[in-house]
Amino acid sequence: MYPKYPAIYTDFYELTMAQGYFLSGKHAQEVTFDYFFRKCPFDGGYVVFAGLSDFLNLLNDFRFAEKEIAFLKKQGFKDSFLNFLSNFEFKGSIYSAKEGEIIFPNEPILRVEGNILEAQIIETLLLNILNYQSLIATKAARIREVAGDKIVLDFGLRRAQGLGGIHGSKASIIGGLNGTSNVYSGLLFGLDVSGTMAHSWIQSFENELTAFRTYAKYYPDSTVLLVDTYDTLKSGLPNAIKVAKELETDGHQLKAIRLDSGDLAYLSKNARKKLDKAGLKYVKIAASNQLDEYLIKSLNEQKAPIDLFGVGTKLITAYDNPALDGVYKLSSVADKPTLKISENVEKITLPSSKQVIRYLNNDGTFYCDGIFLSDEESSESIQHPHFPSKTTSTKGFEATELLHTVVDNGRLRISLPSAQESAAYAKSRLKKLSPEHRRFDNPHVYKVGISKKLGELRDQLIRENN
Amino acid sequence: MYPKYPAIYTDFYELTMAQGYFLSGKHAQEVTFDYFFRKCPFDGGYVVFAGLSDFLNLLNDFRFAEKEIAFLKKQGFKDSFLNFLSNFEFKGSIYSAKEGEIIFPNEPILRVEGNILEAQIIETLLLNILNYQSLIATKAARIREVAGDKIVLDFGLRRAQGLGGIHGSKASIIGGLNGTSNVYSGLLFGLDVSGTMAHSWIQSFENELTAFRTYAKYYPDSTVLLVDTYDTLKSGLPNAIKVAKELETDGHQLKAIRLDSGDLAYLSKNARKKLDKAGLKYVKIAASNQLDEYLIKSLNEQKAPIDLFGVGTKLITAYDNPALDGVYKLSSVADKPTLKISENVEKITLPSSKQVIRYLNNDGTFYCDGIFLSDEESSESIQHPHFPSKTTSTKGFEATELLHTVVDNGRLRISLPSAQESAAYAKSRLKKLSPEHRRFDNPHVYKVGISKKLGELRDQLIRENN
Repeated sequence: MYPKYPAIYTDFYELTMAQGYFLSGKHAQEVTFDYFFRKCPFDGGYVVFAGLSDFLNLLNDFRFAEKEIAFLKKQGFKDSFLNFLSNFEFKGSIYSAKEGEIIFPNEPILRVEGNILEAQIIETLLLNILNYQSLIATKAARIREVAGDKIVLDFGLRRAQGLGGIHGSKASIIGGLNGTSNVYSGLLFGLDVSGTMAHSWIQSFENELTAFRTYAKYYPDSTVLLVDTYDTLKSGLPNAIKVAKELETDGHQLKAIRLDSGDLAYLSKNARKKLDKAGLKYVKIAASNQLDEYLIKSLNEQKAPIDLFGVGTKLITAYDNPALDGVYKLSSVADKPTLKISENVEKITLPSSKQVIRYLNNDGTFYCDGIFLSDEESSESIQHPHFPSKTTSTKGFEATELLHTVVDNGRLRISLPSAQESAAYAKSRLKKLSPEHRRFDNPHVYKVGISKKLGELRDQLIRENN
Repeated sequence: MYPKYPAIYTDFYELTMAQGYFLSGKHAQEVTFDYFFRKCPFDGGYVVFAGLSDFLNLLNDFRFAEKEIAFLKKQGFKDSFLNFLSNFEFKGSIYSAKEGEIIFPNEPILRVEGNILEAQIIETLLLNILNYQSLIATKAARIREVAGDKIVLDFGLRRAQGLGGIHGSKASIIGGLNGTSNVYSGLLFGLDVSGTMAHSWIQSFENELTAFRTYAKYYPDSTVLLVDTYDTLKSGLPNAIKVAKELETDGHQLKAIRLDSGDLAYLSKNARKKLDKAGLKYVKIAASNQLDEYLIKSLNEQKAPIDLFGVGTKLITAYDNPALDGVYKLSSVADKPTLKISENVEKITLPSSKQVIRYLNNDGTFYCDGIFLSDEESSESIQHPHFPSKTTSTKGFEATELLHTVVDNGRLRISLPSAQESAAYAKSRLKKLSPEHRRFDNPHVYKVGISKKLGELRDQLIRENN
């Protein structure tokens, strides 16, 4: 888990800046920061927002205790600052989209308001948690998309990036998976945990049949037999059928067989035929081995009769895109809007305190989103972020605000959702996103515009800086 | 950090198997497991072995306390087994290569001997730690390879996969980086930590010059000015030069400027010229922004005058190959050698207890490695793992064993190396690996053979299984 006092899980520069603000006497200055990302991972069309619950929970303990202060003293920080730091608590406010919300590039889906010191030093922890959990929840949602109602389990712990597995398994559930092999995350977050046997179990017995029989003896109603240790079709499957029949005699049912190597389409079709022929239609087929949304999609297209997927490495590391590029940018100082201009145009940020409004079609599906200044009313149209002449009318569409107060002057204002609650919310929201936006190949870009006022404010600030 | 009792950070099936071994009375059976990987990450030619120290440290606390036992009871485990588990301690033996060793595919570089229950249930923790740390140490070593003697710092925490950052930063140091921005890992592992300012520091002041001046005032001897917030060459650099001159007047020196966007080759050359012209030859140039070994190589080839590299996302997630495929396979049971045959030929494992021998050229550089049965003498030749007729003479080459006893019947037998000690060892060993094996593009494959006896044993076991 995170350290007892998670404030120390941070980049060094947060603290040098904090000391600078403190020593120069500007640490009480009120500021606004936005969290947003720039590009959907996996060349996809959306992100599932996750990590909020853990971040807010840790924020409660965002303090520097004796051990941390002593370490910082050795790094050369001044006593006056360390004294201040040892009494530090976050007393700012946070406005955020709900965990499980479907979010899009450049939307400020979490806003922090507070003094510059407190708003700055929570940056690294915030980014670390939100970036990784949103990334994995999104990967899991894509896998769920292709798996339909089939069972999908997270088997990734052995390939997780160290302790990343703790929250990776939780984020998998938020994104739509059914359970995990990760016992610790199950204990911490109340997730369903499961698992049966490895090849070593089979190898450790004098033969495969004895290995199968022994497992079935102790787990007569939950046995999943791994059939590929020696030869899937010649040895594993006939032995599994034999044990299934023996279980029947005793009034039990073999739950499933598992394929973990070879051509999963070919093997699952052959296995299904043999099982059915033996009167074992109820025995399910589980498959694992480097699965991701593309392989599962391909297996579906080949009509591979697989009932349960175990996904590991590709999910828990988000293998084909292992980081979400979420950033945390200053948007106002002492009520004056500010922005970062950058050498790259697309990296110019949006100034001032903002709200995100989602417009809904009549059937409740998502039409488009608009980014507004916090103190302006939703208008009847939004414009393209870079081409003001390209506008979209929002007249007559139901408008809902995505950001809500979650921390008010340091006090938590919501009850933190469980993984299952956030999963249910994500599921309900994904249903409202059209299939064209959820598509893997070249997804239709979801429209996110900005208000006229916001566009004008940004352009004015750029001109002032030239 | 890992939970106080890290045994719970495991896959569920380790525990169902453990209960099965316990209930069937075979849990005292002596076995051997090997840890090895199959493919070098990054299409590279080697791996830097890391994570051993943390794994062995955690093994000391590999127990199940009340909270864990209570959770497992809810999962349906039986009281007799849970009672056994609550008194569990690892009492087996472990033979391993040193942390920082240069290792190659299919070499059993860590061997566990013990009863089947204890050797099995440490699997997930072992894989989780060794896979990730070895992956990141390898990535860091590649970055060090191209960076030469320049300073390279880990800036990856905000994009690390959650808590993976804790050990990712440590592994970066083992692989050859100089320091990290990650304060918590610095505290835990005694790493050098550093960092200065973000764009938000600049934005929070009325103008860039005031922002630079204020920072320099409080950190007169360690200031690194971030010059790309508004316009690198027109604004950031002239302001940095002004502040450097002011620092000179007070007897101090500006340490560096940092470029974080735009074309780093173009900007660094221009910046160097302007700094030199201003008599600021001593001011260094730092660069960051999506750097990895390929970008640094390209910057070197363009003769970009960059003195310090900050690497983030691409290092801490091993972005282009975010998992090492390390596995843990059973190789003997009750003194009988065993192997997994698999549908894929290259996944057939090597049976029995083994040792890895490294042969050295006259100048101490690595010639080749051989995998032998533990109880056989190093012979005068080794053979290709799949073509017995292809042999390599090892006559006259100095032979050293890579695996040493690190845990003897549950007792730790080495003093655990610090990150710096393992880094020094890795550095000394990488020097002995030829440039052709270290090369990025299509590296020369380092020769790893097996002994004749081992090959015959494997082939005999395969025949017996047909």
